[in-house]
Amino acid sequence: MERLKARIRDIPDFPQPGVVFKDITPLMRDPAALRLAVHQLLHPFLGEQITAVAGMEARGFVFGALVAWELGVGFVPLRKPGKLPYEVHSVSYDLEYGSNTLEAHTDALTGEDRVLLIDDLLATGGTAAASCELVERLGAEVAGCAFVVELDFLGGRQRLRDYRIHSLVHY
Amino acid sequence: MERLKARIRDIPDFPQPGVVFKDITPLMRDPAALRLAVHQLLHPFLGEQITAVAGMEARGFVFGALVAWELGVGFVPLRKPGKLPYEVHSVSYDLEYGSNTLEAHTDALTGEDRVLLIDDLLATGGTAAASCELVERLGAEVAGCAFVVELDFLGGRQRLRDYRIHSLVHY
Repeated sequence: MERLKARIRDIPDFPQPGVVFKDITPLMRDPAALRLAVHQLLHPFLGEQITAVAGMEARGFVFGALVAWELGVGFVPLRKPGKLPYEVHSVSYDLEYGSNTLEAHTDALTGEDRVLLIDDLLATGGTAAASCELVERLGAEVAGCAFVVELDFLGGRQRLRDYRIHSLVHY
Repeated sequence: MERLKARIRDIPDFPQPGVVFKDITPLMRDPAALRLAVHQLLHPFLGEQITAVAGMEARGFVFGALVAWELGVGFVPLRKPGKLPYEVHSVSYDLEYGSNTLEAHTDALTGEDRVLLIDDLLATGGTAAASCELVERLGAEVAGCAFVVELDFLGGRQRLRDYRIHSLVHY
């Protein structure tokens, strides 16, 4: 995936000193790279009878919507608290400092759904694990999780060992 | 656009008492309705030689990414402050209570670009006007703005009278 890596930019000391942020906006800006990324994200799941794609706010909305579109299924946004207007299920999870919450509409998925989760980044796996829990709370099945970038040294994959994980680019 | 209206849900008193929120998550969840919306969003601009699509965080990421994909051009995220890791231009604008800021990477667009702006909702036009200013600050041209929903009674279109405005569903 060197073609994708060439469109991912290192930003030192963002969002805090000592962290090297992987900026995927150049990849979104390049239609050929974006097309490659989206097709590589969904490819392992083509035989999986996916019925919906869920994406995590906010960069997961870009890749998630495109994967849903290409699979011909609907898109379910997983959002930060207070953003979704209808009745929600919530899952909270710990971050290095503090905690976060993700919400989904209670009627977004049913027991018939097989869901592919999409985000741009797998880091510690906290967001992804909460997303899987949220999908299951709605009664649906997680068919897998796909990420553009995986930061191997943060061990997020271990936290998700019950799920099929697919990442395009590893650091 | 009755087919789209049938997938937009009224949520009374969200985000505050007296406001009826137009919930477009059922539209995103229905692949046929989503396909119709995306094709209707881009249709008037097919002859406009669009070189990039910009979408406003966060629901604009869903529709913006899909319009960019279908036009075969790149996607530029316009984000809330502190989210974009590289050098940014910022535009602040007033809300009914308080103010907001939108940011774009300084290298996201150039003087060669003709940009289509996409968001889910045209309300007072504050976010859209700031987005147009941001695109122009980067040296690019705004070819137009397209919205899934326009709240006519809020008069946002008057605030954007220098631009070509296209909305699918009016309330």
